[in-house]
Amino acid sequence: MIEPRILAVRTKILKKNDELARRMRAEFVASGVLVTNLVSSPGTGKTALLLETMKLLIDRGRRVAAIVGDLETDNDARRLAESGAPVRQIMTHGCCHLEADMVRDHLDGWDLGQLDYLFIENVGNLVCPTSWDLGESLRVALLSVTEGEDKPLKYPGLFNTSDVAVITKIDLSRACEFDRGLALKNIEAVRPGMVVLETSAKTGGGVTEWTDFLEQKKGP
Amino acid sequence: MIEPRILAVRTKILKKNDELARRMRAEFVASGVLVTNLVSSPGTGKTALLLETMKLLIDRGRRVAAIVGDLETDNDARRLAESGAPVRQIMTHGCCHLEADMVRDHLDGWDLGQLDYLFIENVGNLVCPTSWDLGESLRVALLSVTEGEDKPLKYPGLFNTSDVAVITKIDLSRACEFDRGLALKNIEAVRPGMVVLETSAKTGGGVTEWTDFLEQKKGP
Repeated sequence: MIEPRILAVRTKILKKNDELARRMRAEFVASGVLVTNLVSSPGTGKTALLLETMKLLIDRGRRVAAIVGDLETDNDARRLAESGAPVRQIMTHGCCHLEADMVRDHLDGWDLGQLDYLFIENVGNLVCPTSWDLGESLRVALLSVTEGEDKPLKYPGLFNTSDVAVITKIDLSRACEFDRGLALKNIEAVRPGMVVLETSAKTGGGVTEWTDFLEQKKGP
Repeated sequence: MIEPRILAVRTKILKKNDELARRMRAEFVASGVLVTNLVSSPGTGKTALLLETMKLLIDRGRRVAAIVGDLETDNDARRLAESGAPVRQIMTHGCCHLEADMVRDHLDGWDLGQLDYLFIENVGNLVCPTSWDLGESLRVALLSVTEGEDKPLKYPGLFNTSDVAVITKIDLSRACEFDRGLALKNIEAVRPGMVVLETSAKTGGGVTEWTDFLEQKKGP
C-alpha cells in the first residue's frame, strides 16, 4: 500500500530519528534519569495513572518530570502539574505520534542530572508511536479493561516493542466483564514472558507495585 | 516536524487516494448503497455496535455488507459475520488506517446494486483515518464513555471531518462517572450543531434511534 518512494523517504527519516534517539538515550543514562515512554489508545488512562505515580514518587523523595504529547490542548500537562513536578506539553498539531526531536526541543533548560525519572506520555495511538524511538529506557504498553482483551493480538507491534504491559482501570473489570485470563493469555501469545502489572488510578490498586517496578528499573 | 520532501510525496499520494475515493463515491451513490465509515479509538466498541445495527437492518429486510480493517487478525470480521451478512476483513499488516484502494480491492465480486448498506469499520485510531477518504457518504466519529469527555478537544480533526458523533457504552456511564453534559459541550465546541447519538450495544439502548438515523440518511 505504501509506495516505494515514500517508503525510502520514511526510512531515512526514521533512521535520523533513531540516531538522535540513541544519542539522547546515552545522555539520559549518563545523567542517571530513567526515561519512560507510555503508549496506549486514547482514553486508556495514561494521565490518571501517571499523576498517581508521580505523586507517589515525589512522596518517596524522588525528582520527577514529565512531557506530554497531544494533537491539541494542554489538558494533560495541567492535570499532571497537580503533582507539583515540572511538566511540559508537546502539541503536535495533527501529528499522530511523538518524535525524538520534539522531546529534545522540550528538554531545554532542564538539568537532567537533577532528575530521577522523566516520563513521556505519548499521543494516544496504538500504531504509529511504536516506530519512533524517543531515547527511552523503558517503553510501557497500557491497555484498559474497557478496550477488550484482543488488543495485544490486533496491535502486536506495540507489545513487541514494549518492555512491560500495564492493564489500567481494573476497578471497571466487573462492569466491563473483562476476561483477565484471556487478556493475559493474549499478551503472552504475542510476547512470551512479558511482565504485566494491573492498576487502578481511581482506587489506587496496583499503583504501589507499578511504582516499585519503576524503582527497581531505575536502580540505586 | 514533517520534512518538505515527505510532505510533497504524501500530498501526492493523498491526492491519488482522493481521486479514487471520489470515483468510488460516485459509483456507490449510483448503485443506491449508503456507505458508512466508522472511526474511533481501539476498543470503543465499533464492532459490537455494528453487529447490533446490522442485525436490526437485516430484520427490517435491508441488504447489508461490511468491510473491517485491522492491523492483524480477522476477529472482527468473524464477529460481524454472526449477523449473516457478507463481511470481509482487510488486514493492513502495520498500516494505521484504511485507504480507498484497500476498500476497492475488497469489493471484488460484490454487486453493489444488490446492497442497501455497506459499512466500513476503520482501524482503531483517532488520527490517521481522518485524512483518508474511502468514498463513504457518511463518516461516523465514535467515542465511548470510558475514554474521557475531552476527546473531541484533543482530536478535533476527527470530529470536524465526521457527519455524526456516536457515544458508545452508555451502560458504563455511571461506573465511569461520565460527564455527559461536558462531552456534549466539547463536541459542540469543536463542531457546532453536530448530531450526537447515544448507544449501548450491550443493553440495546439507542441502537434503534441510530439505525433510524441511518435509514433516514439512506432515503427511500
